[in-house]
Amino acid sequence: MSSAAPLGRGPKVRAAVLAATVEELSEHGYGAFTVDNVAQRAGVHKTTVYRRWPDRDALIADALADSVAAEISIPDTGSIEDDLRALARSLVAWINSPSGQAVLTVMVSKAAGLPSPPDSIRHVFRDRIRRALPVVPRAIARGELPSGTDPAELVKTLVAPIYFRVVITGERVTDGTADAAAALAVTAARAGLFG
Amino acid sequence: MSSAAPLGRGPKVRAAVLAATVEELSEHGYGAFTVDNVAQRAGVHKTTVYRRWPDRDALIADALADSVAAEISIPDTGSIEDDLRALARSLVAWINSPSGQAVLTVMVSKAAGLPSPPDSIRHVFRDRIRRALPVVPRAIARGELPSGTDPAELVKTLVAPIYFRVVITGERVTDGTADAAAALAVTAARAGLFG
Repeated sequence: MSSAAPLGRGPKVRAAVLAATVEELSEHGYGAFTVDNVAQRAGVHKTTVYRRWPDRDALIADALADSVAAEISIPDTGSIEDDLRALARSLVAWINSPSGQAVLTVMVSKAAGLPSPPDSIRHVFRDRIRRALPVVPRAIARGELPSGTDPAELVKTLVAPIYFRVVITGERVTDGTADAAAALAVTAARAGLFG
Repeated sequence: MSSAAPLGRGPKVRAAVLAATVEELSEHGYGAFTVDNVAQRAGVHKTTVYRRWPDRDALIADALADSVAAEISIPDTGSIEDDLRALARSLVAWINSPSGQAVLTVMVSKAAGLPSPPDSIRHVFRDRIRRALPVVPRAIARGELPSGTDPAELVKTLVAPIYFRVVITGERVTDGTADAAAALAVTAARAGLFG
């Protein structure tokens, strides 16, 4: 590569390559994803990419994990209803963003009969659920939810109607979708369905 | 084609081609689906297929609609909880069958960045929801649910946790998943969330 390469080897390269990875996934999907395209989009040589990431799946996993970690903040408003509404709205915003589109694309590739994404990538999705779990014990401690409430069951109930609309019925998801999902999850939790 | 072709032009041909279509989709997905493979699997010449179905999407839509119509029976037990449990269990059984796998594969192709399935195919899924709607007004008439309950919102809430686990978290779905989904939907409906 000539000395005119616009990027060096520092953190800027990493950020540019990870951003290009998310954009490539978002635009072309998992099946058509190549390190070549990522390198071109990021303005680096592909050996620069392979120096840091052994293969495309390692690169994808790193890019998506980075993007999820940057975008999730776990609410602690003092009210389970407000916390769940904030979580659901943040999921909707993420799904409507390039990063969310990229993750969803990879996730559903398996179901579509494409090469199955490795567990390192599926892990990114589970991570979103895991990070949200602490809102539940805090609500139990405040006496807002029954003491045996299973955090994972509650959070899955919160996010299921949102993913269902995106992937299966092809509906757009909005803050209204998020608020309805939050009302559903808190009603079910208070009725003891996750106990 | 030689006179040794095992199938003639009657209803047996139609049934064999539609069954082969579902099997091909289920095994190889929407992206890799070809009329050639279907013809070979059904033991007919591909011109026999094109004589009845103008293109692959017409064939797929016909096969899936046929399969859904054959497999759905709408319960009328006299109890909304029993009706919803039966609907959810029948969805789980369908998802775990070759026909259900085929429909899901086509449905999520769009989300996976593959060529988008035509609306005639997405219609098969909406049809499953539509067929289930009558259980709701019957329950309202019996005084089991609030009078303004929206049937589509209730049925989507019933099926969302099931599809979510199949497509997003990759969990197996069972009768237990179905029963929990039914409890969730009826609890939410009674709390007036679909009103």
